[in-house]
Amino acid sequence: MNRTILFTALAATALSSPLAAQRPQQRTDVPAPATVDASVARLRDAALRDEVAYDIVEGLTTEVGPRLAGTEAEARARAWSVTKLKALGFKNVHIETYDMPVWVRGAETAEVISPFPQQLHLTALGNSGATPAGGLTAEIVYFPSFADLQAAPAGSLTGKIAFVSNAMVATQDGSSYGQFGTARFTGPNIAAQKGAAAIVIRSIGSDHGRGPHAGNTNFAPGVTPIPAAALSTADADNLARIVARGKPVTLRLVLTPRQTGVQQSGNVVAEVPGSDPKAGIVLVGGHLDSWDLGTGAIDDASGVAITAAAAKRLLDGPRPRRTIRVVWFGSEEVGGFGGRAYLAAHANERHVLAAESDFGADRVWRLETNLPDAARPIGDRLAVALAPLGIVRGTGVAHGGSDIEPVLGTGVAGVDLDQSGQRYFDYHHTPEDTLDRVDPAQLAQNVAAWTTMLAIVANAPEDIGPVSSK
Amino acid sequence: MNRTILFTALAATALSSPLAAQRPQQRTDVPAPATVDASVARLRDAALRDEVAYDIVEGLTTEVGPRLAGTEAEARARAWSVTKLKALGFKNVHIETYDMPVWVRGAETAEVISPFPQQLHLTALGNSGATPAGGLTAEIVYFPSFADLQAAPAGSLTGKIAFVSNAMVATQDGSSYGQFGTARFTGPNIAAQKGAAAIVIRSIGSDHGRGPHAGNTNFAPGVTPIPAAALSTADADNLARIVARGKPVTLRLVLTPRQTGVQQSGNVVAEVPGSDPKAGIVLVGGHLDSWDLGTGAIDDASGVAITAAAAKRLLDGPRPRRTIRVVWFGSEEVGGFGGRAYLAAHANERHVLAAESDFGADRVWRLETNLPDAARPIGDRLAVALAPLGIVRGTGVAHGGSDIEPVLGTGVAGVDLDQSGQRYFDYHHTPEDTLDRVDPAQLAQNVAAWTTMLAIVANAPEDIGPVSSK
Repeated sequence: MNRTILFTALAATALSSPLAAQRPQQRTDVPAPATVDASVARLRDAALRDEVAYDIVEGLTTEVGPRLAGTEAEARARAWSVTKLKALGFKNVHIETYDMPVWVRGAETAEVISPFPQQLHLTALGNSGATPAGGLTAEIVYFPSFADLQAAPAGSLTGKIAFVSNAMVATQDGSSYGQFGTARFTGPNIAAQKGAAAIVIRSIGSDHGRGPHAGNTNFAPGVTPIPAAALSTADADNLARIVARGKPVTLRLVLTPRQTGVQQSGNVVAEVPGSDPKAGIVLVGGHLDSWDLGTGAIDDASGVAITAAAAKRLLDGPRPRRTIRVVWFGSEEVGGFGGRAYLAAHANERHVLAAESDFGADRVWRLETNLPDAARPIGDRLAVALAPLGIVRGTGVAHGGSDIEPVLGTGVAGVDLDQSGQRYFDYHHTPEDTLDRVDPAQLAQNVAAWTTMLAIVANAPEDIGPVSSK
Repeated sequence: MNRTILFTALAATALSSPLAAQRPQQRTDVPAPATVDASVARLRDAALRDEVAYDIVEGLTTEVGPRLAGTEAEARARAWSVTKLKALGFKNVHIETYDMPVWVRGAETAEVISPFPQQLHLTALGNSGATPAGGLTAEIVYFPSFADLQAAPAGSLTGKIAFVSNAMVATQDGSSYGQFGTARFTGPNIAAQKGAAAIVIRSIGSDHGRGPHAGNTNFAPGVTPIPAAALSTADADNLARIVARGKPVTLRLVLTPRQTGVQQSGNVVAEVPGSDPKAGIVLVGGHLDSWDLGTGAIDDASGVAITAAAAKRLLDGPRPRRTIRVVWFGSEEVGGFGGRAYLAAHANERHVLAAESDFGADRVWRLETNLPDAARPIGDRLAVALAPLGIVRGTGVAHGGSDIEPVLGTGVAGVDLDQSGQRYFDYHHTPEDTLDRVDPAQLAQNVAAWTTMLAIVANAPEDIGPVSSK
């Protein structure tokens, strides 16, 4: 297999030579035609009929369900995972534990007291403060956008409930999460600093439904956490219409989450041993924890399932050159504790490449890489081999997922297999993140893409050295 | 206007003559080409730009929200409606009250205790009994279909929770509601008779989501109501998968609804006065009450809005021959108390035709009529005038909606403007029945259809006599 791969590598290199670049029809961002190694193509095409990934997603969501970081449910998920990964034949399957602070949900209800009494659906944001058990009743101050909240004068929110209704829209690459997500990431802290008694935001989501989108927020040191919650998009839109009637609007909130102190979480590790210990480790995975409202099917049972199912296909074939390490990270949702714990435990090992699947179960549409120049032919081979799956080569740089960010931060090369983001934020962190949202055909296309990537990367004859950060 | 309508009537009659029927291409169920009265066509086409109906749906869902029958919220809805209908210029706007028994929701939670602990989403069915406040824990007995529950031996469910997972699918005409709905309508009564401690059913709905579908059930006299609830479709599917693992499954249910005794409900009545008191009344409407989980946008703010918006278009033109009476019925969802109270109060009046809109806000696709033979030309004119809206003439018989069933039962003629049922049961009786589900363009098509129907029926020169029931 290696000889054929070498030939393909040379061919791909030739196509990016000055001569080839002079051809008028040649676009440098489009993979040039080249032969894909036959064994890679066979692995790729067989993976389109994969059933292992769906079996993992079905099992985790059915037999464990929600698995909030640091809770007993996440511990059950780790035990389940060890059993499953061992049954699949992986080597060196084990749990690596670490400690982390845990926040858990309490009661959460909201109602418009006046002018138009009715219940609203909402959920507390991670790290939210609590109202009194009997609730908090206050008038709202309305901010159509996050910028409007930022512009509110200091002290102007004293005793009030801030309501920010900035409305996220879906994008193919998910980038609007960053743009609109600030209302959740930092809105509560800003509102607290301006004196607000509480804050409710329109869920950071692209749906039109009643299921609120959970997610973490953070308060700066010295800022006392206030009750902070996300209204479902439908409820936020309704509240904005109520505000538009022009009368003062009073809400009653009951939110009783609490911090439960330091608890144990952990990462689950499994390996496909490589034949060349000096060639370094290829690290892939997703995260095992989930928000508690759904069963974490797209976020991120799918990611752990896709990466393990792909690695399993290498496990069942000839031993790859490099060890493939599959990590199902813990406590990603609440602050990336698993990713940092992993790096702390494995800083002395030679990782040569890392990749994460943490954007649902819809099809991979784009390849991005961050490779050292000497390993550039690997990127060319990836592009050619992935093209039959409908995957384009991007013009940017791989950034990885939050669990592997610490590893990538040490200069390890990365590959992104970007999934379609058109549906992801309809269900992200909501009660609707359940098995029904996973399309088995698209899930299998993911497995095919990851299998292809692993087959090429784990067997690449080139040395994959460190990259400077981009 | 009447002269032109008379001409159209004569033309339509001619087309159904024996001569016309001999033409080989003629299908009797397809409206023959005919001239539509120009004023009717103008009214119809202008109504495609209607904004009154959306304004009513937006107002009811925003300024009132959920309005469960017999509650203070339904009373607020009646007050809102009187204000709105008077503002629109309707005559004789008033409330007609009546008394009815009221059931209200309490706490409702469910969790799998073993083998795979996790929360489930469910909602109590109307008339459900209650568990102890601390909950009821029992093993489930699984029935894939309603027929399986029926076949269970007497006494075989003693102390158990029956779980029926029959899965409804959507149909264009909504008829699958009757087929699969029996699990809700009579399943709890059957389970109680067989000794069950409680029953949970898969929601009667065509979605794949976490929002359970509420709805009434009824226990026979002498049968003590047991706790009865609908799991969301996603939760029911998950529970069925858990059952499929083959281990005993134990649930803990907390359901604390209660009967609050006899309370006041009411119908809201408004009129477009006709010029000929002897020509009889055309009765149209929908129901004002809603289930309490959503804001009742498609069920049935849309129906009251469509019928009122259409009547408003007649109100703003030349006085029609017949009085059009718009009734926004109360307490339909919980047993049709409003429809029966209406008939009791108005049995001595001459109703000549009744029609109801109570199937959401999606487009009208079919016309059905139940007219006496002497008024058959009216049906022909309706078919021709509605065809440009994409509405076909059905081959069946109009059955009306549940609010007008009592009136139709006295031999009054009926017209059905059947709406598309493909989406309706995705949201029906769920938290997701909110304004977002209403497509303004399809809502306006409904108004155009109802405006057309009222313009023809209210001005028809024919006498519309009683029909024998079909």
